[in-house]
Amino acid sequence: MTSEIITIGDELLIGQVINTNASWMAKSLNENGAVVRQITSVSDSADEIVRALREAEERADVLLITGGLGPTHDDITKDILCKYFQTELVEDEKVLENIHRFFQRKGLPLTELNRKQALVPKGSTVIENPLGTAPGLAFHKNGKLFVAMPGVPYEMKHIMENFVIPWLQDNYPGNIILHKTVMTQGIGESFLAAIIADWVDELPSEIKLAYLPSPGIVRLRLSIKGNDRNAMTSLLSGEIQKLRQLIPEYFWGFDDEKLEAVVGEILKKLGRSVCTAESCTGGYIAHRITGVPGSSNYFKGSVVAYDNKVKEKLLKVPSYMLERFGAVSREVVEKMAEEACNLMQTDYAVSVSGIAGPDGGTEEKPVGTVWIAVAGPEAVVSKKFLFGDERERNIVRAGTAALGLLRSVLIQKEGADPKAGPGSRD
Amino acid sequence: MTSEIITIGDELLIGQVINTNASWMAKSLNENGAVVRQITSVSDSADEIVRALREAEERADVLLITGGLGPTHDDITKDILCKYFQTELVEDEKVLENIHRFFQRKGLPLTELNRKQALVPKGSTVIENPLGTAPGLAFHKNGKLFVAMPGVPYEMKHIMENFVIPWLQDNYPGNIILHKTVMTQGIGESFLAAIIADWVDELPSEIKLAYLPSPGIVRLRLSIKGNDRNAMTSLLSGEIQKLRQLIPEYFWGFDDEKLEAVVGEILKKLGRSVCTAESCTGGYIAHRITGVPGSSNYFKGSVVAYDNKVKEKLLKVPSYMLERFGAVSREVVEKMAEEACNLMQTDYAVSVSGIAGPDGGTEEKPVGTVWIAVAGPEAVVSKKFLFGDERERNIVRAGTAALGLLRSVLIQKEGADPKAGPGSRD
Repeated sequence: MTSEIITIGDELLIGQVINTNASWMAKSLNENGAVVRQITSVSDSADEIVRALREAEERADVLLITGGLGPTHDDITKDILCKYFQTELVEDEKVLENIHRFFQRKGLPLTELNRKQALVPKGSTVIENPLGTAPGLAFHKNGKLFVAMPGVPYEMKHIMENFVIPWLQDNYPGNIILHKTVMTQGIGESFLAAIIADWVDELPSEIKLAYLPSPGIVRLRLSIKGNDRNAMTSLLSGEIQKLRQLIPEYFWGFDDEKLEAVVGEILKKLGRSVCTAESCTGGYIAHRITGVPGSSNYFKGSVVAYDNKVKEKLLKVPSYMLERFGAVSREVVEKMAEEACNLMQTDYAVSVSGIAGPDGGTEEKPVGTVWIAVAGPEAVVSKKFLFGDERERNIVRAGTAALGLLRSVLIQKEGADPKAGPGSRD
Repeated sequence: MTSEIITIGDELLIGQVINTNASWMAKSLNENGAVVRQITSVSDSADEIVRALREAEERADVLLITGGLGPTHDDITKDILCKYFQTELVEDEKVLENIHRFFQRKGLPLTELNRKQALVPKGSTVIENPLGTAPGLAFHKNGKLFVAMPGVPYEMKHIMENFVIPWLQDNYPGNIILHKTVMTQGIGESFLAAIIADWVDELPSEIKLAYLPSPGIVRLRLSIKGNDRNAMTSLLSGEIQKLRQLIPEYFWGFDDEKLEAVVGEILKKLGRSVCTAESCTGGYIAHRITGVPGSSNYFKGSVVAYDNKVKEKLLKVPSYMLERFGAVSREVVEKMAEEACNLMQTDYAVSVSGIAGPDGGTEEKPVGTVWIAVAGPEAVVSKKFLFGDERERNIVRAGTAALGLLRSVLIQKEGADPKAGPGSRD
């Protein structure tokens, strides 16, 4: 079974937007056994869209289309689908209700333009889109499936997860590809490769391994293809078990788990609280921690002490310390963490002080130098890092390293890794 | 003159790699007058590549191809080009020399596999690639240009900048497309459309308008096509001037500008400082502000008061206020901003308190309710917002709204918009 993706929008063809939708959809299709033959991007032009549809229809069984479903004049996909499937637009009550609800919730009036979004091609299957006002639309023709989705990434993903993927699994079962990604932190790609080299050599041939590095984190993706889900799952689990034993200090989770969510789980399990005291990360660590739903159970707050005066006044860093050792030093970062614990009455505090760049570097402390400390009930642990030249990446890597240090302190001081027990998720 | 882009590689079709090359090339082609009709991604399969070439050749004058020029077995583009243009591979001395130099510089031996990279299709124009071992290859056929480039982004960019773009400028001078994107904040797409409807109706036909919404921000992209750069620039500027007069309170910048950078510029210009006091945004606003290089000139710090006790202790919010009005209230958010100003000794402070979700909503204050305040030297301004259900988006929208409110306070209180003067960038 083959599939194709058609992404519609001038913004793609003038290079204003990177086509992240296409790669997300391609990945999702592949994982569910649909080989993607072609990805096509065309402009908001009726002729181009019709041509792309016609060509893709000849080649593929499943066609996914995104974009051009919005309310404004340049959104023409719905009209074109009507022409293509020789039907007409009719108002759909349920869609209109959803639009009403959507605007009511926002306390906004419903404009004529938005009401038009309730028009759908007669004969199409309307796919609910609770996250926006444009519904997804499915068409069946000669055994082929066409699905048009909004181009807004999270709306598209919602429709993929709630309609397209279940449809593929129902209609093409047994075409299985399984992926499992092992998340590591605190070690570079090549060092990791050296540690696991023997295990890689002995991997069963059905299992493929890929290294996917991102700032501060290396993901190891294991893929297996076949038709017996149970046998595949068990083979994969066994190999992951072996892999984890090789890298206990670097492994921290699976798949799309976030480090901050894993740390949050540990804190919740231990009944411990945390706060942050941030200089160069400027609130980024607090932002990551509070991005996790329910984080108010263990996160109390943060002092972002960007200016040294704020370090002195709020975090009681003595001025002699700033003068003698500099703001980017073991002494200052440890003091920041200790005082944050006192100030916000938490069990733990994470602190960061560093030089994100592009300015502020010296020969002794170049851009990318970052000190990180974790203060706990008994002691303070601190560590120096040397990241790179790029401000944005330095902030991300410092945040990941800080969360990683907090995780390892929690696990070492407070007992076993919650992921290591029989309740482990792999 | 029209162009097409064909990107080759299994990694694109399984969704492992995001096609950033295509958007970069598309942008570059557009800026040089080549309208991109289609972007096509196909796998490393001879049949698919030949088909994609044939179809694109029918439609476009310039065809750019990337990928599949490497030394390994899955790199088949060169063989396919030979077949397509009915020629054969011959060794190119200059390319071989470049490969020798390349490996010498790295202190590596030259393998047989790499020597094969000196083979080029007879009759093609060999384009130097000093950054890698695979040269670019150009073919001319019936007045059409085909250029095959390596898929490594910086090698592709080098060949684009040193061969493709100069060729376009030489062969199609005066084929110009200009884009300008107007950034707005604080108003939804459909309401914006209603305000500017008359202006849209009277837009000269050469100018195309597109709406590009993202959380809290709507971008309006104006495009113009023609051959007289000066006349086009002046027509576009005139229309943008009219547009801005319709939406003075929502317009905040152009093109790829970030709201936090625009706010930073205003603060720097005014010599004013700022801090934040954040509850539901959890440090996100401070993170955005400090993402801008040089922000330490005007940003002093932040208190993330996630827990009410931190609001009481650090931001001196009286407990009776929290009890009577709740943490998400005008009273509390204004107090947070005022105290943050005092605490961190800044001219301005932005504060946020809201319910990001998924928990914590009530009938009176549902998830998505957010109060934002800006305290300044003279007064405190505050505003209530009702965003949606989704935690992550609520945080982003609250951050954008807070920066937007700060911007409008700065402009209203402190004088003219720095973008509105004769030094304006449009």
